[in-house]
Order: sequence, then C-alpha cells, then structure tokens
Amino acid sequence: MSRQQREALDALLRSLPRSETPPTVEEQRSGFAAGVGRPAPEGVAVRGTVLGGRPALELEPAGVTGRGRLLYLHGGGYVIGSPDTHAGLVGELARRAGILATSVAYRLAPEHPFPAALDDGLAAYRELLEAGTDPRDLVVGGDSAGGGLILATLLAAREAGLPLPAAAVVFSPWADLTLSGASIRSKEEADPIFVEADLRDYADLYVGAGDRAQQLVSPLFADLAGLPPLLVQVGANEVLLDDAVRLAARAGAADVEVTLEIGAGLPHVFQHHYGRLDEADAALDRVARFFATHLEAAPVSTR
Amino acid sequence: MSRQQREALDALLRSLPRSETPPTVEEQRSGFAAGVGRPAPEGVAVRGTVLGGRPALELEPAGVTGRGRLLYLHGGGYVIGSPDTHAGLVGELARRAGILATSVAYRLAPEHPFPAALDDGLAAYRELLEAGTDPRDLVVGGDSAGGGLILATLLAAREAGLPLPAAAVVFSPWADLTLSGASIRSKEEADPIFVEADLRDYADLYVGAGDRAQQLVSPLFADLAGLPPLLVQVGANEVLLDDAVRLAARAGAADVEVTLEIGAGLPHVFQHHYGRLDEADAALDRVARFFATHLEAAPVSTR
Repeated sequence: MSRQQREALDALLRSLPRSETPPTVEEQRSGFAAGVGRPAPEGVAVRGTVLGGRPALELEPAGVTGRGRLLYLHGGGYVIGSPDTHAGLVGELARRAGILATSVAYRLAPEHPFPAALDDGLAAYRELLEAGTDPRDLVVGGDSAGGGLILATLLAAREAGLPLPAAAVVFSPWADLTLSGASIRSKEEADPIFVEADLRDYADLYVGAGDRAQQLVSPLFADLAGLPPLLVQVGANEVLLDDAVRLAARAGAADVEVTLEIGAGLPHVFQHHYGRLDEADAALDRVARFFATHLEAAPVSTR
Repeated sequence: MSRQQREALDALLRSLPRSETPPTVEEQRSGFAAGVGRPAPEGVAVRGTVLGGRPALELEPAGVTGRGRLLYLHGGGYVIGSPDTHAGLVGELARRAGILATSVAYRLAPEHPFPAALDDGLAAYRELLEAGTDPRDLVVGGDSAGGGLILATLLAAREAGLPLPAAAVVFSPWADLTLSGASIRSKEEADPIFVEADLRDYADLYVGAGDRAQQLVSPLFADLAGLPPLLVQVGANEVLLDDAVRLAARAGAADVEVTLEIGAGLPHVFQHHYGRLDEADAALDRVARFFATHLEAAPVSTR
C-alpha cells in the first residue's frame, strides 16, 4: 500500500505542469499555494496574530492545555510560501503533538533579501521569550528553506545570548545555499520536484551577490555546538538529501544530540502529504513523540 | 541526572586499568568479559544451542508468544567478546522488544581470521531461514565489529539470493576497517575507550595482509541497495562516529530507509549500560519500537 502511495505521489509530482517560460515570482507563489497548500485540519483553530512585528498564524488544536509551544518557519526557497500554504502541515503537526503552534510570515525575497528573513525569525523567537515563554516549553521547526532559516535563527539566538529551545525539527532542510552536496547531481533524476537550477534561482534572489557560504545563510557551515536536540527528516529522492546528511554529521561532530531519518522513495517535504501517505503520518507521529520527550525532560520543580 | 550519569560513565571508563605491556589476546578476552559482561536480565531464559554449526545462546523473555525473532552478532573487534559477554545487552533488547533472540559465537581472530566470522554469520542466517523462519518475522542486529559483521552477512545473503530480514539495528558499527573516518582522529580525546591503534590491532588480527577495503570486511564501501530498514545508534564521543554517519549516508544514497541516532556525550556501545544510564534505556526502547514497526509491517494475510 505504502509503496503504491509513494509511486502515485511521485507520478503526481512529475505530472505537474511546467511552464515553457520561467514563471514570475507571483506565478510561483500562487502555483505553490494551489499545489501544496492544505487548510488546517479539522479541530485546529486558526487565528491571525503578529509576532516579532510580522503577521503570523496561531494554530491551536482543540483540547490543548499544556505549556508546550511550537515556533514554525515555512519553506519556499525564501521566495514563496506562507503560513497559509503551510496551515495544513503545521496544524497537523500541532494536533499530533498536542501543542500550540505559531507560524510566522517572515519577509520574502526578492523584495526583502537576506538578512530580512533571519531578522524576522530572530525577532519572533525573542518576542516569544520576552512574552514569558519558558524556553524549556518551546520547540521550533521548519521545512526546506524554513529548515535552514530556523537553524540560522538558533545560531543568531545563541550569538545574542538568548536561551535555546527544548528541541528543533527540520524537514528536508536547505542548509547549504552553495549547493555543494553530491546529491544535487546524484539525485537529480530521482527528485520529482527540484533540479539544481531551481535552487540556484532561489539563492540568487535571497543572497544576490552576497556570500552564500556565510553561516547565517548556510548554517551547515556553522559551528553547531550548543544547539538543542535536533530531528532531521528527509526523503531519499531529493537533491537536498546531502544537506540533511551533512547537517546530522556536523551536529554529531559538535556533540549535539541528533536523529536523522531518511525515508526511502520519498520526495522533498513529504510530510505535506499526511493522511494520504503512510510515511508522512508515521513521520509526523515521530516528531510528536520527539517533542514530547524533550518538552517533558525539563523538571517542573525547578521552574 | 542523565548528564551526571554520562559523566560518571565516562570517568569510569577512563579509570579502567591499562596494562603497561600490551595485553595478550587471552587477557583481552577475560578483561572484556569482566569489564563489560552482564548476565541476562531477570525473566529472560537462556539456553545453549547450535546455529549454523556454531555454539549460540537463545534468550527467551518470559511470556513471548509472537513469531518475531532476533539474530544477533556481538562486538569485540572480531577478536574478543562472546554471546556470554553480551547476554545482558541482547537479553535486555529481547525483553524490551518481546522477541526471542539468538546470539551466535562466530569464530574469532586471530585463530580464525576473515572470512571465518562472516561464514558463520551467513550460516546462522541461512539455517534460521531453512528451519522455516519467515524473513518477515526476522530482525537482525549487532554492535561494533558485530554491527559490521551483520551488515556483511546481509550483503552475503543478498549475493546468495536469500531473502533479507524485516529490519536491522547496529550499535556503534565498525564498518570501515581502513579507519578512514575523520572521527578516528577528531574524537580521539573524546573517546574514553578506543584510540586508533586499538582498532588497527584488531584489523591486523582479523584481516592480516588482506584488503581492508573489500566490501565484506568494510561494508561501508559496499553498494547497500536492497538492504532492509536500518537503525544506526552511535555515541558522539566515539572515534567510530563517522562509521555510523557514513553508513547512514551511503544507505540513504542507495534508497535504503535509515535512521541515524547520535547521542551527545555518549561512548561506544553505550547501550550496554541499560538500567544505569537513561540514554541506554531510551535507546533500547527505540530499537524495540523500530522492530515492532517493521515486524508488524508484513501483512499476515499473505503468509
């Protein structure tokens, strides 16, 4: 069953129309919203808010009573995507984890190149702490560019002397904007979504003539020491596979607790397909368990 | 608490007496049995048997009724260790997973260099199948050299056209006898157990003048395509860290489902310390869950 699901998903992704002429940024944004976006699941209340000076969505699963809180940064190459396109994924994750989530509309390129997105990520994180959130009650996450961005946000928070959260999860993180991973080429045929040029175009819009190897653009190259326990999920059918693999390797070398899960036959951010792909459901359940483990780890008595 | 446990374990391992003169193989074997060996946990029945022509221990947790079965190959650099030294680790794993385990006394170097151990591993695997074990009911595991050996056994089984098991777990696998991982040097200070020379001595005894890069000696260099879902657990304080990291990378590149767990501050095969190190208990519980997932995955109706 699951193999059939994987193959059907792969075929579906490959069948998506590709325009003959390069799409405009606006066309990419609307196409992404139409192709990837799913509404928040039933039972998850969604309301608009502002965090760190940016619009954000709060997603609250019914019956949540604990203090656990998720800060989420969506993917989309730093150019497309929004909390709306990710209301399904983030809402489903919040529902399974039983925690309140906040998904931030950080500024996008090309209108707002680096470091606008990072500034917004750090401002959101800082405001959560200033509002009284205990960092031991806080977990963070992101997918694709949002995965790289949440890692850069943690590095910036560490530099700013802020306490770090209890745990972090990244789905198919884009952590190397220099595109130096071997899988950029070796997985080109296997990847139903991206080729190298797509990623290069996003990097052009986000960093322009800037240094793509700098640590807050490509957190893969940063010293990761001191980061919280990290869960990295990635598909084997991804040009970005090696971003995930090298991230786990670098984290472990820096004595960070890290779990890397590589899903056979799966595409970029396959977790979007919960409810119709068994591996997506199982992966989100593992994230929920990971969050629960680390949110519970802090002794209540010392608060 | 757990941090104190980790630090106490590290101090204990560093305090173990090291002889001024290199110990003989017999001294190493008795020292390993005294220092690492733990008896099977209460409630796990142990009986001697023979599998693939070699002595073996069967470890049966009380109340086990399912068909799940674990084939385990112990660690010890291909030179030391036995099912007896690993009765605690394997018994505890069997107990948590709720399955019957068989731990094989494959032949050791220097008396029996490569490929004796591999021949014994493959013979054991083959006999389990010939005795009627459905490979979908079978999981395999090993630690350190036993982790490398179980991987080589799977590769040999694949070459022989045998069906592969439902899943495999390796603890701190030694998968590269050429010692080419960067962590061999970078983790030398952090590793409380091994330095490069220790591993080189074991490789000398196991392979002698043979090619240490050959795939059945160093399965890291094999094409891993077609291997079953693989769980790799390793400590961050290990010269063998990069064996685990590169194994996961190679498996993922070959579209094998793989999970890599790197435990911060933990030594080689930390799972031996269940019951006194929280991370060991949690790790064994995750293995049990991993086995359960994959043993249940096979549809009963098609058997």
